[in-house]
Amino acid sequence: MIGFSHVALIGLGLIASSISHAMRRAGMTARITGTARTESTRREAAELGLGEITETAAEAVEGADLVILCVPVGAMAAVTAEIAPHLAPGAVVTDVGSVKGAVIEAVAPLLPHHVEFIPGHPLAGTEHSGPSAGFAELFDNRWCLLTPGEDADPRAVARLRAFWESLGARVDTMDAAHHDLVLAVTSHVPHLIAYTMVGVADDLRRVTSSEVINYSAAGFRDFTRIAASDPTMWRDVFLSNKEATLDILGRFTEELFALQRAIRTGDGDHLHAYFTRTRAIRRGIIEAGQDTPAPDFGRVPKKA
Amino acid sequence: MIGFSHVALIGLGLIASSISHAMRRAGMTARITGTARTESTRREAAELGLGEITETAAEAVEGADLVILCVPVGAMAAVTAEIAPHLAPGAVVTDVGSVKGAVIEAVAPLLPHHVEFIPGHPLAGTEHSGPSAGFAELFDNRWCLLTPGEDADPRAVARLRAFWESLGARVDTMDAAHHDLVLAVTSHVPHLIAYTMVGVADDLRRVTSSEVINYSAAGFRDFTRIAASDPTMWRDVFLSNKEATLDILGRFTEELFALQRAIRTGDGDHLHAYFTRTRAIRRGIIEAGQDTPAPDFGRVPKKA
Repeated sequence: MIGFSHVALIGLGLIASSISHAMRRAGMTARITGTARTESTRREAAELGLGEITETAAEAVEGADLVILCVPVGAMAAVTAEIAPHLAPGAVVTDVGSVKGAVIEAVAPLLPHHVEFIPGHPLAGTEHSGPSAGFAELFDNRWCLLTPGEDADPRAVARLRAFWESLGARVDTMDAAHHDLVLAVTSHVPHLIAYTMVGVADDLRRVTSSEVINYSAAGFRDFTRIAASDPTMWRDVFLSNKEATLDILGRFTEELFALQRAIRTGDGDHLHAYFTRTRAIRRGIIEAGQDTPAPDFGRVPKKA
Repeated sequence: MIGFSHVALIGLGLIASSISHAMRRAGMTARITGTARTESTRREAAELGLGEITETAAEAVEGADLVILCVPVGAMAAVTAEIAPHLAPGAVVTDVGSVKGAVIEAVAPLLPHHVEFIPGHPLAGTEHSGPSAGFAELFDNRWCLLTPGEDADPRAVARLRAFWESLGARVDTMDAAHHDLVLAVTSHVPHLIAYTMVGVADDLRRVTSSEVINYSAAGFRDFTRIAASDPTMWRDVFLSNKEATLDILGRFTEELFALQRAIRTGDGDHLHAYFTRTRAIRRGIIEAGQDTPAPDFGRVPKKA
């Protein structure tokens, strides 16, 4: 059997909500159960009709043949311990965490041998969080990376791949350590840098906050979008992908100091060559269908 | 007289082209002349119908009552020297440079006493450059900052303000040094950081370029947009706003090191508190009408 007949969503934020919406859009008839730790989140999810909402994770996974852990990376171990005794034999367990090495270390030892653990990470999200932030198109044309262990059942990997593809995603598999390094470059360090820059602007007493806000269209506003992402999720990402993050951060500061030195010494050729090289990458991303070619991301100009 | 009857555009890139389009949209009947150093740019501008395109800057400013310098900051002095003998008495001369102190130092001493110099900076642009990148809506609801000197004629300032408002912009005036500091925070340092991060990703041999590109939707793609901006313009910005850029960069690295230390020591509370604070700034920007509240800037999801 390729499809799943009962999908349990543990955690009901942006990702879980979008999975539910995208399953319905794909015409899947699978039963959906879900739970969240916070009562108001459960109520919101129930009102949105995301699935049968249960009070406990143990109830949600009862009989499920696909269990998706959609909680922050730091909460994965606790929910796994809670659901482990209730998992159905043969169930596929996956997650959507932004870090894979630490999640595997935390989750795998707690799972019974009669389930298949296939870690996963959909590269999709927005700066909004919570059940009402979800939408069916979130995964369209975005990548979902699976990092199955060497002893993973290829049929379970194929079923999970087909599931994500029906939600609109492209799927790739890779080693967990490589995933964590690639994501440090394409996501974790960019987020840390954006948070830092927005924090600096907020701190500056000589530049009033209304100026920073009014004049943000000069570039700064692009940073504020990713610096508005969920704080708990991102705290956990940095704490659990420490090594790769610090490695890439080291390279970043090395390059930044070289550019800073070029500014101080007036080395215009160095700056121009550097800025020319980075233009090509944007073109590659647009050609790969990972962003829009429209100026300013196609933001609609608005009248006051 | 409030309106201008003849506007000369020196330099024909994204900004000059958008000024021409926005003037037409506003129903202005003023004559528009323009020139650029490169022949292919002049030809492109002529084909787009941006105005009467002349071969030299001297011809373009002949009889103009508003002259707008739309060249990179590093080229301002040379074009000013070229046009100075040909400027009409009473003409208002302005510019669109991203740095004001250095432009004033370079331009003001070269101008004849019978013209009014009112430096300006429209906080608008995209990652695209050249005459064909311009469009009439570019300045809508964006700020244009004027930095008139203490001896500037208030009537000239009022005329220039009215001009920019007809193009759709909001106008504010401030001191040139303050402008350069505010822009270092809201634009110059964010651009340098984005260029650096994109350069680091490009450099990494362990992470193939197709991975960086495919998985860019995890955050990185936001950086590539501003790192695709015009290299010559940005080289000049950093070289001519050196002091403020280095000042803000110093604060940035200080904060970054504090966050790096929190990651290394596992100080989750510090990270969470920092990431929570930065969320509020995004809300302020959306309320001020300087960005869209739509997730992912309202990028349209696209099928492969």
